[in-house]
Amino acid sequence: MTEAVSYSSLGLRGCKADFPLFRHRPELVFLDSAASTQKPQPVIDAIADFYARGYANIHRGAYRLSAQATDRFEAVRERAAQFFKAPAAESLIFTRNATEAVNLVAYSWGLHNLNAGDVVLVSEMEHHANLVPWHLVTGLRGARVEAVRMTPDGRLDLEDYAQKLQLPNLKLVALQHVSNALGTIHPARQLVDMAHAHGKPILLDGAQAAPHLPLNLTELGADFYVLSSHKMLGPSGVGCLIAAPDTLEAMPPFLGGGDMIREVYAERSTYADLPNRFEAGTPAIAEVVGFGAALDYLEGLGMEHIHAYEAELFHYALEQLNPIEGLELYGPDSDRAGVISFNVRGAHAHDVAGFLDEANIGVRAGHHCAQPLMRALDVESTARASFYVYNTKEDVDALARELRDIVNFFGENA
Amino acid sequence: MTEAVSYSSLGLRGCKADFPLFRHRPELVFLDSAASTQKPQPVIDAIADFYARGYANIHRGAYRLSAQATDRFEAVRERAAQFFKAPAAESLIFTRNATEAVNLVAYSWGLHNLNAGDVVLVSEMEHHANLVPWHLVTGLRGARVEAVRMTPDGRLDLEDYAQKLQLPNLKLVALQHVSNALGTIHPARQLVDMAHAHGKPILLDGAQAAPHLPLNLTELGADFYVLSSHKMLGPSGVGCLIAAPDTLEAMPPFLGGGDMIREVYAERSTYADLPNRFEAGTPAIAEVVGFGAALDYLEGLGMEHIHAYEAELFHYALEQLNPIEGLELYGPDSDRAGVISFNVRGAHAHDVAGFLDEANIGVRAGHHCAQPLMRALDVESTARASFYVYNTKEDVDALARELRDIVNFFGENA
Repeated sequence: MTEAVSYSSLGLRGCKADFPLFRHRPELVFLDSAASTQKPQPVIDAIADFYARGYANIHRGAYRLSAQATDRFEAVRERAAQFFKAPAAESLIFTRNATEAVNLVAYSWGLHNLNAGDVVLVSEMEHHANLVPWHLVTGLRGARVEAVRMTPDGRLDLEDYAQKLQLPNLKLVALQHVSNALGTIHPARQLVDMAHAHGKPILLDGAQAAPHLPLNLTELGADFYVLSSHKMLGPSGVGCLIAAPDTLEAMPPFLGGGDMIREVYAERSTYADLPNRFEAGTPAIAEVVGFGAALDYLEGLGMEHIHAYEAELFHYALEQLNPIEGLELYGPDSDRAGVISFNVRGAHAHDVAGFLDEANIGVRAGHHCAQPLMRALDVESTARASFYVYNTKEDVDALARELRDIVNFFGENA
Repeated sequence: MTEAVSYSSLGLRGCKADFPLFRHRPELVFLDSAASTQKPQPVIDAIADFYARGYANIHRGAYRLSAQATDRFEAVRERAAQFFKAPAAESLIFTRNATEAVNLVAYSWGLHNLNAGDVVLVSEMEHHANLVPWHLVTGLRGARVEAVRMTPDGRLDLEDYAQKLQLPNLKLVALQHVSNALGTIHPARQLVDMAHAHGKPILLDGAQAAPHLPLNLTELGADFYVLSSHKMLGPSGVGCLIAAPDTLEAMPPFLGGGDMIREVYAERSTYADLPNRFEAGTPAIAEVVGFGAALDYLEGLGMEHIHAYEAELFHYALEQLNPIEGLELYGPDSDRAGVISFNVRGAHAHDVAGFLDEANIGVRAGHHCAQPLMRALDVESTARASFYVYNTKEDVDALARELRDIVNFFGENA
């Protein structure tokens, strides 16, 4: 089904030329898209154009400019619901980022459904965004967090998951769809079905999945799914919670303020229907408009093609990096989004990243907001190279070339 | 101290020409800045330029592009702290908007300091953003909200405030600095001093004050101050909580996620110092950069000049509108930011706004997220015209001309 793609210096279908950052910094090999992606010109233009020609606050505006801005904003909700094949547009809630979306569920669902002794089941592979909110809210309710183990090769231990689903007082499962630290693509459908077979609701953290995989959230059936615009070519400052409508309908508000109310008295309030109940105050209006442009751009590339292109880049990278003696690679050999996590033996990840930076190769080094995963790997930190649509075979070649030099340097100086 | 300003069609110091929306819509008389302001070209350019030349995720990035982006982001924190004369840069927290900033205080301070029977004192003039979070959090803690009354001319009733400060179990005062519905500028220093004289901490909602008044938050001494970028020429998607450092230092986190932690285990976490403890996940990076450009632009105009210019526009508007029979004006005759709230006798505010829109005059109609204030005025809604730096005497003339026609129409058809 997938067209042949070429590893030219142009990126997927030549798209690299659409990203002005690479025109302004032609020397840069950008391998940090798992932290945040660059933005194509149409996204930048959509934001600038909206401010220049169509900006006003939305909802409640009694004039055409405001009504048009409202239509623009709400059209992106419909667009995003269609893009992710969400069960309903009104249960797609705009947040600041995936992190806030998890917190929304933790505070709204969690504060009202968790009681003393209850358990929220996460995994030791989670990003802190899908751990800390549960620590905060279980702490407030006298509940607790348990974690599914990781296998030595960096997958979720499904036997351990099956066992822990039987924990008494288990109230919610909260797992990642794709690992930000290793790139492991988890079997999301299976994770959901196993939770549901035990009658447990499940949240999937899709921050690292939505940029890389075609999604059909209606088929997937997770009760909650969260993602961030800035990791998928869109602006910073906007993310989504996409929930089962009935589940969300039954939840009390999280943030209070304008737009989410029905009636307010000095001493009490009643609350609006979906989606407004969960969007208090002036939202990230221009950012939502920019996110819509990002989804249009991604659809132009095709999520199937993006997934296939990244898989080929990843396997090409493994081919280049596996033979390098003195390089430790983490994570499974298959089912990976475009992330390579590694260490040079005898060197600190930050030093490796520093050397790469001197060669204009930008990678991240550290715990990648996944300290429990680092402990499970028994490392303090890793360097992480992550790929997206604008990356090329040449980028991988540059990384491999520099890593050979770095390994030699540390080998000779060991 | 203030230079003479002229009511030319150019706005304050000719700045209207800097706002591209008015080039693209020369016919538009935009009188809805209290909902959200238009953006000058330097703000739009700052965002586009940052995405095109300098974007990367911030903090923890081991390469120069990320380090530069971090510097850019943190420089705005310093810039904003200096602009508002905040007590310290590290207790200036970036949020999505003023609404989220109030919620941060409500959840972090409120959930941990309010107990059954405790009281949070608001006023019946508050925007819902400074009511509903207190309803939510007092509801969770078995505490309650009481409200200071409004005087018939639209000021806070200071005698009632003085009495209610003596309520047993009063734990926090949360009042607006400027009314979004009426434009009333409250005596902020006196409100703070009165609360502190009773040993009570006070939050001021500055969403409608920060755009219009020179602020010295260190002198003002409020324990919490909140504001929104989008109401002061900056992008949507960013706001601030500015707090007393010691108070904030003693508060537990609100949102959990990346960047706000010190150590995370699967089952528990410890938290970072200020400001990171309160900024979970990837922030609104480009929006913060744009907010910095807005502050630079406002400083170029001068907040003293803005305040004086708006006061003159407001008094000019009163001169034009007061003589119109059949027009009901709300709010005091002095101490007003640039807001005129009104009704045409015998007409619904939405119909009045609709007529004005046909004449290309954009105003807002409704309860302005201030339902208790509407009840205190004994009206269902008002139309609201609000001014900012780009508005002109001609805008006021256009509003007055159309309102005379509308009053005549409804008078003849009554």
